[in-house]
Amino acid sequence: MRTIVRGGTVVTAAEEVVADVLVDGERVVGVVSPGAVPFVADTEIDATGRLVVPGGVDAHTHMEMPFGGTFSADTFETGTRAAAWGGTTTIIDFPIQSRGGSLREGLDAWHAKAAGKCAIDYGFHMILADVDDSSLKEMEALVGEGVTSFKLFMAYPGVFYSDDGRILRAMQKAAETGGLIMMHAENGIAIDVLVEQALARGQTDPRYHGDVRHALLEAEATHRAIQLSRVAGAPLYVVHLSARQALDQVAAAREAGDNVFAETCPQYLFLSTDDLARPGFEGAKYVCSTPLRPAEHQAALWRGLRNDDLSVISTDHCPFCFKGQKEMGLGDFSKIPNGMPGVETRMDLLHQGVVEGRISRRRWIELACATPARMFGLHPRKGTIAPGSDADIVVYDPTAQQTHSAATHHMAVDYSAYEGRTTTGRVDTVLSRGRVIVDRGEYLGSAGHGSFLARDTCGYLR
Amino acid sequence: MRTIVRGGTVVTAAEEVVADVLVDGERVVGVVSPGAVPFVADTEIDATGRLVVPGGVDAHTHMEMPFGGTFSADTFETGTRAAAWGGTTTIIDFPIQSRGGSLREGLDAWHAKAAGKCAIDYGFHMILADVDDSSLKEMEALVGEGVTSFKLFMAYPGVFYSDDGRILRAMQKAAETGGLIMMHAENGIAIDVLVEQALARGQTDPRYHGDVRHALLEAEATHRAIQLSRVAGAPLYVVHLSARQALDQVAAAREAGDNVFAETCPQYLFLSTDDLARPGFEGAKYVCSTPLRPAEHQAALWRGLRNDDLSVISTDHCPFCFKGQKEMGLGDFSKIPNGMPGVETRMDLLHQGVVEGRISRRRWIELACATPARMFGLHPRKGTIAPGSDADIVVYDPTAQQTHSAATHHMAVDYSAYEGRTTTGRVDTVLSRGRVIVDRGEYLGSAGHGSFLARDTCGYLR
Amino acid sequence: MRTIVRGGTVVTAAEEVVADVLVDGERVVGVVSPGAVPFVADTEIDATGRLVVPGGVDAHTHMEMPFGGTFSADTFETGTRAAAWGGTTTIIDFPIQSRGGSLREGLDAWHAKAAGKCAIDYGFHMILADVDDSSLKEMEALVGEGVTSFKLFMAYPGVFYSDDGRILRAMQKAAETGGLIMMHAENGIAIDVLVEQALARGQTDPRYHGDVRHALLEAEATHRAIQLSRVAGAPLYVVHLSARQALDQVAAAREAGDNVFAETCPQYLFLSTDDLARPGFEGAKYVCSTPLRPAEHQAALWRGLRNDDLSVISTDHCPFCFKGQKEMGLGDFSKIPNGMPGVETRMDLLHQGVVEGRISRRRWIELACATPARMFGLHPRKGTIAPGSDADIVVYDPTAQQTHSAATHHMAVDYSAYEGRTTTGRVDTVLSRGRVIVDRGEYLGSAGHGSFLARDTCGYLR
Amino acid sequence: MRTIVRGGTVVTAAEEVVADVLVDGERVVGVVSPGAVPFVADTEIDATGRLVVPGGVDAHTHMEMPFGGTFSADTFETGTRAAAWGGTTTIIDFPIQSRGGSLREGLDAWHAKAAGKCAIDYGFHMILADVDDSSLKEMEALVGEGVTSFKLFMAYPGVFYSDDGRILRAMQKAAETGGLIMMHAENGIAIDVLVEQALARGQTDPRYHGDVRHALLEAEATHRAIQLSRVAGAPLYVVHLSARQALDQVAAAREAGDNVFAETCPQYLFLSTDDLARPGFEGAKYVCSTPLRPAEHQAALWRGLRNDDLSVISTDHCPFCFKGQKEMGLGDFSKIPNGMPGVETRMDLLHQGVVEGRISRRRWIELACATPARMFGLHPRKGTIAPGSDADIVVYDPTAQQTHSAATHHMAVDYSAYEGRTTTGRVDTVLSRGRVIVDRGEYLGSAGHGSFLARDTCGYLR
Repeated sequence: MRTIVRGGTVVTAAEEVVADVLVDGERVVGVVSPGAVPFVADTEIDATGRLVVPGGVDAHTHMEMPFGGTFSADTFETGTRAAAWGGTTTIIDFPIQSRGGSLREGLDAWHAKAAGKCAIDYGFHMILADVDDSSLKEMEALVGEGVTSFKLFMAYPGVFYSDDGRILRAMQKAAETGGLIMMHAENGIAIDVLVEQALARGQTDPRYHGDVRHALLEAEATHRAIQLSRVAGAPLYVVHLSARQALDQVAAAREAGDNVFAETCPQYLFLSTDDLARPGFEGAKYVCSTPLRPAEHQAALWRGLRNDDLSVISTDHCPFCFKGQKEMGLGDFSKIPNGMPGVETRMDLLHQGVVEGRISRRRWIELACATPARMFGLHPRKGTIAPGSDADIVVYDPTAQQTHSAATHHMAVDYSAYEGRTTTGRVDTVLSRGRVIVDRGEYLGSAGHGSFLARDTCGYLR
Repeated sequence: MRTIVRGGTVVTAAEEVVADVLVDGERVVGVVSPGAVPFVADTEIDATGRLVVPGGVDAHTHMEMPFGGTFSADTFETGTRAAAWGGTTTIIDFPIQSRGGSLREGLDAWHAKAAGKCAIDYGFHMILADVDDSSLKEMEALVGEGVTSFKLFMAYPGVFYSDDGRILRAMQKAAETGGLIMMHAENGIAIDVLVEQALARGQTDPRYHGDVRHALLEAEATHRAIQLSRVAGAPLYVVHLSARQALDQVAAAREAGDNVFAETCPQYLFLSTDDLARPGFEGAKYVCSTPLRPAEHQAALWRGLRNDDLSVISTDHCPFCFKGQKEMGLGDFSKIPNGMPGVETRMDLLHQGVVEGRISRRRWIELACATPARMFGLHPRKGTIAPGSDADIVVYDPTAQQTHSAATHHMAVDYSAYEGRTTTGRVDTVLSRGRVIVDRGEYLGSAGHGSFLARDTCGYLR
Repeated sequence: MRTIVRGGTVVTAAEEVVADVLVDGERVVGVVSPGAVPFVADTEIDATGRLVVPGGVDAHTHMEMPFGGTFSADTFETGTRAAAWGGTTTIIDFPIQSRGGSLREGLDAWHAKAAGKCAIDYGFHMILADVDDSSLKEMEALVGEGVTSFKLFMAYPGVFYSDDGRILRAMQKAAETGGLIMMHAENGIAIDVLVEQALARGQTDPRYHGDVRHALLEAEATHRAIQLSRVAGAPLYVVHLSARQALDQVAAAREAGDNVFAETCPQYLFLSTDDLARPGFEGAKYVCSTPLRPAEHQAALWRGLRNDDLSVISTDHCPFCFKGQKEMGLGDFSKIPNGMPGVETRMDLLHQGVVEGRISRRRWIELACATPARMFGLHPRKGTIAPGSDADIVVYDPTAQQTHSAATHHMAVDYSAYEGRTTTGRVDTVLSRGRVIVDRGEYLGSAGHGSFLARDTCGYLR
Repeated sequence: MRTIVRGGTVVTAAEEVVADVLVDGERVVGVVSPGAVPFVADTEIDATGRLVVPGGVDAHTHMEMPFGGTFSADTFETGTRAAAWGGTTTIIDFPIQSRGGSLREGLDAWHAKAAGKCAIDYGFHMILADVDDSSLKEMEALVGEGVTSFKLFMAYPGVFYSDDGRILRAMQKAAETGGLIMMHAENGIAIDVLVEQALARGQTDPRYHGDVRHALLEAEATHRAIQLSRVAGAPLYVVHLSARQALDQVAAAREAGDNVFAETCPQYLFLSTDDLARPGFEGAKYVCSTPLRPAEHQAALWRGLRNDDLSVISTDHCPFCFKGQKEMGLGDFSKIPNGMPGVETRMDLLHQGVVEGRISRRRWIELACATPARMFGLHPRKGTIAPGSDADIVVYDPTAQQTHSAATHHMAVDYSAYEGRTTTGRVDTVLSRGRVIVDRGEYLGSAGHGSFLARDTCGYLR
């Protein structure tokens, strides 16, 4: 089964060149000047006037994640299908260790959820909820199995929270095994005091979610994680950074030459506390942690994306329906499930940044495809279009316009965070390992096509 | 009872002027040009060729402090007498709330220890070991009684440690009452992991005390305390800062205009990890927390003293005898009682900084007398020589040399941290509230002369 | 002739104490508790309910200064009288070396202008317009005569401008002699290009004066002066700093421990480019260099004053009448004489900062009296109230209100930059060397009372 | 004429992939998995076990440059041949405007020198020695002809020096035309004073060249150039940055989001003031400007290369023979021609950084090939291996060792700055536009093969 994607502008993190992409089976076998070599293909895709880009790599999703008595609304089946619709062909999701349970049990449970369901390939990071001698020991095995990154929380005391001693020990183990520590950096202990005080004052609306999760408490935790990583001699990856002051901490560490990395998410670039403060309970749709920040933080985040102080764009996709799920927090913002949908809209929203002149086209691909692949040990298999890489290819129309809406999106959630917003750029065709799974508005994929990805260690630390 | 101190060079934080100081009863009533006004005195002290400076204010001492089954070696009687010998006429000591006990009980216990024993005046800061609604409520009363500052610990988990939520709540209460939060800023949770690991590796010598209490973990905690204080809208006073990197955090906050203050201690200016690493168990004499740092930190601290990024010099006087006390940690550095003697040598060591050209004479007085008095609500009663201030006056010989030794010092501890070191400058005569208590090598004071000082709130926040 | 100032609150840079001030002849001989010592005075001044502060020291004035074919409007007679009315009892003015002329000629000319005319004491800094072997040699002699500071210009090419080589050589000579280099830090070469371009575009109104003298070009020159001073090993004093970005440069140098100092002026704290942009030609009243900045710079300057990144408040008093003088620039902002009146209003405007809670009362005196005296070698003679200091004393009513107006001020200029503005605080009585020269609205001084002050070298460098 | 480079590891700035490179005529037409497509080639190059990298782009050379009565020793013929030997297939050289002459005259003269002589392709930057209305006008035409970058000097007063006004005007013109200003950032005016003083003290040896060209004077000029570029709204490219403090300035500007770029050169990474201080007159071999710095600057430069605060490695190749040329400065270091050979050794020395673990292989190519091509408008023609790019290809043996020596190098200069130093990695084969010009130790190129490159504007500003 051979395919040729003809005549498009192939955009990778490094180049932008008019070329044919040759696919044989599941792999790219060549990038060649149009018509330069004979190549008999079973399928020809005309990409004239289109961009040909690597399939997106979303390094941060939460499918079917248990949270406060409910589950995030997308299953691996619906969520990966929505991802495909949006031009993303790889996700990395987060199995959770239960308190008192083993990593193995958590990982097995997620394997069971995902196996045979996914439209696209998927990998796993492991959430450590209980750092002790046993779970530290298990980290070694997981690295060997291709689960090479481990997430810790400085937030959510009593649930996922690890204290600084546990964090330090996990970082030491990461340094030893080549694993990468991912950090949710918010001072949850202090935040819980502010939550309690806000509720006691009758401040129960969603907008107070943003107030109590103070930007300085994100900056604080970010700095703390950096210092602990220095003591441990370990690299650090900060997830869903949203505050300008936290970015300053990452930038200073990077300037000093430390292996400190951070991601942000589209919601922090396009939404703000103004959305959290929407009238009635509508703000609940915008409750996630770290929270949305005042709009003036956005310019700093875009600058960080240009400067490479922010290296990755992922989604933190963790959708909860407004009806029945977000509503659990009516009268008490602290009970609103934390999370927003996004796995389908990431590539388009970031392309809107290209359209608005905020980042270059190459940087779009670097942030959304190449760097997450390299960061999490998937390069050169994913994140680029090169001989030998997986034929995860998106034909993208850079001029088509679309209007975002829950009525038309494919995520299993009853609202869109961008309802009614129009952006420029849209996926035409998506290949996953050589197979066309989306084509001009038609879904051609199947549950189970996607395979588990045993990942290598972080590509920036070798 | 009237006294005149004649013809000396009167040095305050602001001026250096040849003048007579007139004392009536317990108060200074005038500073006048020599012989300019008639003043019939009962006592004349000839200060020709001498400096006449305010009595020292040591804002950080621990007399008779319980620690790990023993007590710091100086009682209020011996400790305040030694202070007087060294030209210090005011100390502020630290009553301790017991876990589960009230502030009141702790404060009462310290009042009982000190009453009728002190050679010089004394005040109290309160250590909070248990921040809860009850102790927070008690803070209000204490401010009213002149105990206007409260110390918290980010170190010593299980003993004095407060988590970030407790710290935040105490800071909020301080902001409300005008109290000042003093912080021991080290990440004790992470340090305890490093202690355990070091001991497990057989690293039991005193030198490892310095290794495990990592400079970056002091910087981390300092930054965290600053951010929490910003969230609380409260001022912050960082005690015994010793690491260059922690100083950078304080400097940045001060440059930003925050009410953040820090003290350092003579041991951090004159001693280093080289002392901690002395052969045999001698390093135990130099075990204190924050620990001594590599010698290259000293230049940064001196610069901080010049820049006013460091505002106060105090001692953290907390002596334990080498025999019987420090020896409790033979074979396990973590069992060495933390603390060093210093209440007697502070004025002389800092004057040595004047001799070496590191600070000016006026800055010596500002750091050792005026600023601690103002910081802790004792100004203008203490820390200066001005009409109306307490006649706490030191006649100081700036050229006399002395050699420090346990054989000659007056602290109730069996070693000197500066044994054999010669410095230039020495106390001739000390007055406490108008009474001569030390005169040319003779102690004329008495236990009980010193009174409790009900302090006002911090003089920098009004 | 003996005077007693009774019962006021004596405020110095260090203390605030209710006391009597005893004066004998030209000197203060004592500060004593009210009534504590017998002192028979010829004159008694009741200061009950008033502040008693040192006479102001204005370290930056330009009386009778030639500029573009005209002269600044105040003579030494009118200008020093106005200073006295405003509570300032010392000025330091700027003799000018002519291009091709000697320092001596310039200094002699200014001595001739000032001698026998001044209401208050005065000193001189020397402006170097021509740095060469001869003028460098003369610097030595001037330091010996008490002219211990030397001003250079990075602005005004073809007039006062010195290139970086001349600046470096003058700094080296200053380092050698103990002199202090004062710098007008603006990149005049670049500014002249922008001036020419603006005029060519028809941008001739006063507001463009602010545009072409770009804040970044002040920051640039400030950084350059700092680096040159480091290479020369010389201290640096930056005059009339107005831009936030220039302040950042000074702050960084001070944090690094360099002997870098800066002054700002009241106009930069209370006025802005909004004034420069007043309708018609009125903006011309606000033309000075460095220029007024957008109002958002003011907060940074106030913070710098609190932080001691800005050490001195002076006036750069250089008044030109609107009629006949400022009007020379009608149709060409570059021809507007640069300068504003201010010698009379400095103490009051800065006291307004006290009233508004921006600085403390002690800091007011430090910035306006003590530090300029110490910086320029006049301490302890000027800038404080202490035994032995000159009896330059101001009795100040901190609650009286006044409305500023050209109709009532005493400067020889036809407008007030603060016309109609009301401030709180007003001078009651002024003594210069023991003689009352202003008393409750009456001028009792005389031309020629003021004497030339041979100054010592900078008090911060010893 | 078709060529296939078989089975090597193709390294670009973005990827590292085992592939065949297909060349048809002068262009790359495909990068394909080994054997994946039929391609009949005239020439096959076996690259098994080798790296296949883009030909180097050296953006800073001075062939046949007049300097102080002599000329740099390499002609375009010898210099480009030596470049080819070292794996560099593009140089950008610097035509010089004479004082009083036009840009056109200078450019024509350099076209005449280079035409028909070059072994590899070449472009031109233009040196502005005389910024005035006429030369500014000419800039427009030159951009149209593909000379899109313009170099100015803050050093060398009386020769190339431009004052800040001329710099500002040239930057404004660059902003208008899309040209890029390249800056030699040293404060030449101040340096000349230090030179004169050093010589007057009898300090005539080469080592003093490093002393007088003070690191702070490079930092100063760098900051000044940045501020001027901000005022002009123009991008800035700083050439041959060597001082840590100058790097700090560039890093701060980049962190702020400005279009500020800098290059460094291998000599600053591998040599130091220790070389300048070699005994006898040997230090003269190491005289270049900016000068070599103390060895501790090297770590900062390597960090800058990793951080992208330094974006490009070029050579500033400007060789003068020790005999007869460098010797012109015997007894007066200021007369030593400034410059060092390097065009042949750049790729190898930077690869040594890969071997030592300082940078990654991809970063090697990015710094030495891709970024200079993109920066100077040659991308995607040069600096990468992709369909459509020029077939400038180097087969590189990453494990071969070589010892550098004047005895074996191909530059027309009588010494090597790295004499006797052994590095790992060596060029096997070099193709320029599809033609093999170097192959395993044999030179197969010819003078005149290289063509002039009309460049596009800077690829980072679009």
